[in-house]
Amino acid sequence: VIVMPHSAAETIYQAIESIELIDPHTHINPHAPASRTLADILGYHYYTELAHSAGMPKEPIEEPDLAPRELVRRLVENLQPLENTSQYHWLVAICQKFFSFQSDRLDSSNWEALYDTAEKTMSAADWSQTVLQESKVRAVFLTNDFDDSLEGFDTETYIPCLRTDDLVFKFHQRETQERLERSSGVSLNGSLSSLRDALRQRFEHFSAKGGRACAISLPPNFEPTLVNEGRGTNAFDAMLHQSESAAPAQKQAFSRTLFWMLAELCDEFGLPFDLMIGVNRGVYASGVYQGQDLYDSRVSLIQYRELFNAFADVKFPVSVLASVTNQELVSYAWIFPNVLTNGHWWYSNTPSFIHRDAQARLEAVPANKQIGYYSDAYKLEFVWPKFDMYRRVLSNVLADHFVGMNGWSEERAIELGHRVLRGNVEEIFLKQS
Amino acid sequence: VIVMPHSAAETIYQAIESIELIDPHTHINPHAPASRTLADILGYHYYTELAHSAGMPKEPIEEPDLAPRELVRRLVENLQPLENTSQYHWLVAICQKFFSFQSDRLDSSNWEALYDTAEKTMSAADWSQTVLQESKVRAVFLTNDFDDSLEGFDTETYIPCLRTDDLVFKFHQRETQERLERSSGVSLNGSLSSLRDALRQRFEHFSAKGGRACAISLPPNFEPTLVNEGRGTNAFDAMLHQSESAAPAQKQAFSRTLFWMLAELCDEFGLPFDLMIGVNRGVYASGVYQGQDLYDSRVSLIQYRELFNAFADVKFPVSVLASVTNQELVSYAWIFPNVLTNGHWWYSNTPSFIHRDAQARLEAVPANKQIGYYSDAYKLEFVWPKFDMYRRVLSNVLADHFVGMNGWSEERAIELGHRVLRGNVEEIFLKQS
Amino acid sequence: VIVMPHSAAETIYQAIESIELIDPHTHINPHAPASRTLADILGYHYYTELAHSAGMPKEPIEEPDLAPRELVRRLVENLQPLENTSQYHWLVAICQKFFSFQSDRLDSSNWEALYDTAEKTMSAADWSQTVLQESKVRAVFLTNDFDDSLEGFDTETYIPCLRTDDLVFKFHQRETQERLERSSGVSLNGSLSSLRDALRQRFEHFSAKGGRACAISLPPNFEPTLVNEGRGTNAFDAMLHQSESAAPAQKQAFSRTLFWMLAELCDEFGLPFDLMIGVNRGVYASGVYQGQDLYDSRVSLIQYRELFNAFADVKFPVSVLASVTNQELVSYAWIFPNVLTNGHWWYSNTPSFIHRDAQARLEAVPANKQIGYYSDAYKLEFVWPKFDMYRRVLSNVLADHFVGMNGWSEERAIELGHRVLRGNVEEIFLKQS
Ligand SMILES: [Zn+2]
Ligand SMILES: [Zn+2]
Ligand SMILES: [Zn+2]
Repeated sequence: VIVMPHSAAETIYQAIESIELIDPHTHINPHAPASRTLADILGYHYYTELAHSAGMPKEPIEEPDLAPRELVRRLVENLQPLENTSQYHWLVAICQKFFSFQSDRLDSSNWEALYDTAEKTMSAADWSQTVLQESKVRAVFLTNDFDDSLEGFDTETYIPCLRTDDLVFKFHQRETQERLERSSGVSLNGSLSSLRDALRQRFEHFSAKGGRACAISLPPNFEPTLVNEGRGTNAFDAMLHQSESAAPAQKQAFSRTLFWMLAELCDEFGLPFDLMIGVNRGVYASGVYQGQDLYDSRVSLIQYRELFNAFADVKFPVSVLASVTNQELVSYAWIFPNVLTNGHWWYSNTPSFIHRDAQARLEAVPANKQIGYYSDAYKLEFVWPKFDMYRRVLSNVLADHFVGMNGWSEERAIELGHRVLRGNVEEIFLKQS
Repeated sequence: VIVMPHSAAETIYQAIESIELIDPHTHINPHAPASRTLADILGYHYYTELAHSAGMPKEPIEEPDLAPRELVRRLVENLQPLENTSQYHWLVAICQKFFSFQSDRLDSSNWEALYDTAEKTMSAADWSQTVLQESKVRAVFLTNDFDDSLEGFDTETYIPCLRTDDLVFKFHQRETQERLERSSGVSLNGSLSSLRDALRQRFEHFSAKGGRACAISLPPNFEPTLVNEGRGTNAFDAMLHQSESAAPAQKQAFSRTLFWMLAELCDEFGLPFDLMIGVNRGVYASGVYQGQDLYDSRVSLIQYRELFNAFADVKFPVSVLASVTNQELVSYAWIFPNVLTNGHWWYSNTPSFIHRDAQARLEAVPANKQIGYYSDAYKLEFVWPKFDMYRRVLSNVLADHFVGMNGWSEERAIELGHRVLRGNVEEIFLKQS
Repeated sequence: VIVMPHSAAETIYQAIESIELIDPHTHINPHAPASRTLADILGYHYYTELAHSAGMPKEPIEEPDLAPRELVRRLVENLQPLENTSQYHWLVAICQKFFSFQSDRLDSSNWEALYDTAEKTMSAADWSQTVLQESKVRAVFLTNDFDDSLEGFDTETYIPCLRTDDLVFKFHQRETQERLERSSGVSLNGSLSSLRDALRQRFEHFSAKGGRACAISLPPNFEPTLVNEGRGTNAFDAMLHQSESAAPAQKQAFSRTLFWMLAELCDEFGLPFDLMIGVNRGVYASGVYQGQDLYDSRVSLIQYRELFNAFADVKFPVSVLASVTNQELVSYAWIFPNVLTNGHWWYSNTPSFIHRDAQARLEAVPANKQIGYYSDAYKLEFVWPKFDMYRRVLSNVLADHFVGMNGWSEERAIELGHRVLRGNVEEIFLKQS
């Protein structure tokens, strides 16, 4: 019997596959972290939006009060054109790993049996614990509204992260203002100090509850700058008194004012500030839920020049939406001590973009500044297949570039893999500063 | 004897190489589809512009009344610096396939024999049929002027496509206006309805003659929007009465008005609207014929947001000129049901750009929305080598990513290859809607 | 014994590794071309900026009057996070090649012995000759200030190149004006002809001393255009009389005026004009020396349209800072006879960017228009590892694309490698025109 030796890529993969993960960005609901039926899995926007893109109307997907089994039936009938996508690959991987699915295609001949098996499996009381364990996941970061009470869950496993999009971009809405006043207990009296007090109360709340990061997603045209006190007060006044009808220039000045305060508070509270740069919301307004956002790839990190210079002590893990911005990210992380590379986001989260982006980072960004990956998952079941896609690509880059071209040992390549997969998440987010 | 098994890439290539093609975009002249001498082949702008770029003056190339043999002689003397290019690779492939050429270099020692063989071969009465047959090409789409009579050729083999650049971008020229009036029989009286009537007559004509698509190439700064009736009428008036001297803002408003009408007519007539986005004409004004156009790669599909939202029932096969726009194309095709990926255009039509662009599409765009390739050929002989370059790259992607990384069978990978190479062309352009 | 045949890549590498080099762009000081201690090597901005980026404060790096050994000690303690970078790979390669270093890591356990060995080795009187010889380097191009006397060195080995950044972008500084008057002996009297005379004197000086190129680095927003005489005179007047306080529009008009004169003089003197496009200076103003520059990748060669059309007889070897601009460079070099591709610059000078950029060029740009690589080195020791990185990538592209995909012989691939590595440098820069 001839035993073929593992390739370097396979050896490295096996080693990094065993690393226990901390997922530094998800949208998991800590009160319902895992799925209950296959509808929770197939209802993920990647499947609904791709099925819709391939020709399925929106109405049968979003019909009110639709039973989960019926949603799955309808979607399964429309999956065939998606079989080539990486997203479909995650789906089959989940079914195989967690529900003993034997096929590599989900279709009308096999979905019902799968549905039943999945439902039964997921009904176990400790299902979410099982998923975490089988996925070798120790903890996941959440995406919490600024007025989240952060109560009723284990913050060691489900780590709070203060998401601030509403504050920066929806503050002209009366509802946002009221949510901030209510949750902070601070009355917004028109002075910027009242606003700062309210925000600081929220940072105190998050810090007390184990929050480990502040995060925001940003449109391509956003350019954070320091707005002077008078201009900022004026803009704040317009938000409070004109609300939605405030002039665009006022909204922009206010967004910059509040964003800058967040950066100051990240500095004060020692929190990394995750910047997810480049998304335009609602570009396809008739799309399915969460399947409407796109982008203009003409964005540059030069827009963040003033921010990166002003906050030398704040760590900015940066995600870019389009691969075309990745080289700028590599260069800015190579030069600015406070700029870090963070994961492979959304439209760049497919193998070929991950490959080229990860390799460029590994060649030029200091190893301690690279957060390899986050799942962005809404349900725990997705953490594993998404990370596994990344691990496959990472193993190939480590094997080809570092072992093959640079002559590294496999052990050394595995160490680098560990660092970007796990070590840096601890160093950057979890170490007490 | 040890027989080496074919690699997956080779097996897949062999299978997809046998697929009969329908080429969804060419510039073939149906009245003279094939070449008559080697000058028709070497006179292709890829060779004249590259020879000129490498140092050959324009004058000896474009001397009036130059005999074909003399043109070939002059160009052959200047081909050496081009031997590395993909375009040269097509040339040698054509000579080897069709004219029994034995060398892999075309030079002063062998061009005359080749010229004679080629001339003799091409003089056969059924040469164009032979080329179609040896190239396994069933039909090719044309690029027809809006006032083309579409008579005198077999529209099953040479499928009409209504090209609209002149209408949208040259309507300030008196000649264009007259061509439209003459061909449509509609008098342009200054009302937008007269314009619409004239255009509709052209759509009726093309549909009656088997036209299957409308197409246009667009400069990087074009942004189609709905122009209101009053503004549009005003702009139309400026075109009719001021012609070339109309203000740029009037020309722009008119371009948008007419473009929008074309989209409405595509909707009404059920025609896909091919958008070829990103070219600047005449950047190198002293260049050889058809070798003067370049681009500004700072273009975004966000410019087409209003169009894609307004015409949900029109299929928009989109080609982008620069690979940097490919990720946007992938993302927009992933989200918008009416946006399709279309081929690898012009400056992106070389193996490494095709590889990265095709792989990104295959990983994330539903399989039924990808038109893999078109040749853009001016003469039939070029359909084969261009498609073959694409097939080689496609086979590698299918083998490496789908068979290798995703664990697909070769059969399944071949099915996907068939779909993007042939199946989708029929589904998208030829199925009666 | 089974002897494994070399792979095509390895055979090609061995062949092109033996080619004697002429490095067409460096920052070597001809009066001190090689390093004297390890501090000259580790003090290269790539190491100081990466160590700083990884967490090392700037002060210990830039402490005044720091002894070289102490600088090395401090940096070595901060190198661990950089071990993955290509820059670190150059460092180890230098130590192994020139100082018999046996390890693949430079750390606190081995740096002192290395320091001593290196110091001793470098103290040899003919050290720079030894480096040139062991690196198989015949000559290197310099980067000379316009007022450099160009005396005291062998201009056959150290080839002068007139660097013009100060003239174009710092002429509002009194010092630049005085340097020009002093070096040229021409008094700037406010007429553009006095400026032209002064510049021409500098071109005469450089030509007389064996200068072979004019060069400049340009910010992303620069757009060279012909400024009319009146406007240019006005801008020149503002530089002379308002200096730093001149309006930005005056500075811009002057930059364009002077840049255009340089192009005219390149034409007159038959010098290639190296354009290095895309850098923003001082983006991270608190960074270490030479570690402050970044960029906005939203730049297009369309900005150079007027220039390329106006100066048909000037060769423009173009370097782009970001890989996203490489496809434009490929396309412009494919169309414009006077546009050439030049090396892999700075933030694009890592293996994966070189791979994709070099392959795209080799597929579509005539072979006689590609200058494969330059080292950009400040000390001779860096020429070898940088070129070697390029040679490795080039060998892979030649083997995979040309031998593997296109069926070329290895000999033919090696010829192409020779041309881009060496032949074109002679043809483009050194041949008397
Ligand atoms: Zn997210
Ligand atoms: Zn075309
Ligand atoms: Zn330089």
